[in-house]
Amino acid sequence: MEIITSLSNEKVINWSKLNQKKYRDLSNTFIVEGEHLVMEALKTGCVVELICDEDKIMPVNVPIHYVTKPVLEKISNLPSAPDIMAVCNKLPEKEIGCRLLLIDELQDPGNLGTIIRSAVAFNIDTIVLGKNSVDQYNEKVIRASEGMLFHINIVNRDLMEFIPLLKTEGYQVLGTNVTHGTALRDIRLRSKFAFIIGNEGNGVKEDILDLCDDYIYIPMNEACESLNAGVASGIILYEINNHYFGS
Amino acid sequence: MEIITSLSNEKVINWSKLNQKKYRDLSNTFIVEGEHLVMEALKTGCVVELICDEDKIMPVNVPIHYVTKPVLEKISNLPSAPDIMAVCNKLPEKEIGCRLLLIDELQDPGNLGTIIRSAVAFNIDTIVLGKNSVDQYNEKVIRASEGMLFHINIVNRDLMEFIPLLKTEGYQVLGTNVTHGTALRDIRLRSKFAFIIGNEGNGVKEDILDLCDDYIYIPMNEACESLNAGVASGIILYEINNHYFGS
Repeated sequence: MEIITSLSNEKVINWSKLNQKKYRDLSNTFIVEGEHLVMEALKTGCVVELICDEDKIMPVNVPIHYVTKPVLEKISNLPSAPDIMAVCNKLPEKEIGCRLLLIDELQDPGNLGTIIRSAVAFNIDTIVLGKNSVDQYNEKVIRASEGMLFHINIVNRDLMEFIPLLKTEGYQVLGTNVTHGTALRDIRLRSKFAFIIGNEGNGVKEDILDLCDDYIYIPMNEACESLNAGVASGIILYEINNHYFGS
Repeated sequence: MEIITSLSNEKVINWSKLNQKKYRDLSNTFIVEGEHLVMEALKTGCVVELICDEDKIMPVNVPIHYVTKPVLEKISNLPSAPDIMAVCNKLPEKEIGCRLLLIDELQDPGNLGTIIRSAVAFNIDTIVLGKNSVDQYNEKVIRASEGMLFHINIVNRDLMEFIPLLKTEGYQVLGTNVTHGTALRDIRLRSKFAFIIGNEGNGVKEDILDLCDDYIYIPMNEACESLNAGVASGIILYEINNHYFGS
């Protein structure tokens, strides 16, 4: 068994570079760390190769590279490097469904991961990531999604171009707006809808908001100006799911 | 105007120590950083003294200590020290109301802060923090709460002793349980209730769960095992608020 020990090994250098979006885009691959995420990736069939601690035994049918702990540490983004990682092909974009979540300029990887997790929980078909949002293959996004990234279709689009297309196809486009709109529990959904989530601090951009058919808000105590972005999205997705599938 | 310049000044040393729970408990004070939180604290009347950059002008009726930037940096928990901080008296415990949120062994300060924010938004009267939960005066908790800490009554109790007391007073005690229970939207609430949130990884401890009158779960797609703790709590508090006050 060959074990990679050198930190300047070409493979090691290339794996480390996958921490950067630029190299993920060039290679069309990304990396996941730790057993839970590796197992999710293996189930999806997107794993190109495994990177394992020399003591780890993995009875799987993909190429395995054994490496030393310092090599794992060099590649890892975590405070404590796990004993297994996988290099994966980026997930192919699939046809969009009827229940869309559009994301406009979300910056925090933890928030995007949390929202992906909620989107899977509440039966969203497809997430449409707008320009200037954090990359879905960012390690922190994947981690915060708890592997749910592998369970949902995510596509990248320019929302200013994509939303008008959706409208011609009969999608109901929904945004949030505190000053006017319908209380979340009173919304009426069409069979095809697209709900837009905006930036943590500023919400959805004005020119995108102008394209919406309906506006919703979450009624809350006036002492509280707003909710955490992940929480607000979770509540809205929960209620949309209730309305769409509920009795 | 006197300006504190020395990092070994006794006041500076004592302010820095307020980063630790031990010293917050000994002095019965805590510190908040940045203009937004300082303004919230001032409104509450709990500010003991302000610590300001030498260039800052604050027309308020509390003692002000002017300090240099290196002193602010020594005291601050933030990557970039703000130009104003306040030392505050811990907030007095008030009488508990009818709508309680009980928190059992929650570890992550960001999660506790987010949950405090949601609790204010959805009209919880009192948060009861159990033993082994993160301290509500932790700087990250206060920050994630967006100052909502100042808008809610928080008391510290041993939940194993406190829950039986609540039950004798007629409170309905609610926990979450995935395997059996009522779907969130179908719950029926009594006029006095206490909902328990547990640890991020393990949920509510078994012996506390045994004390509950009712169990609720959030229906979700089977691909998703669980939601982020802050999101799950937010959804439950949203729905409880709807049921309690809704038509």
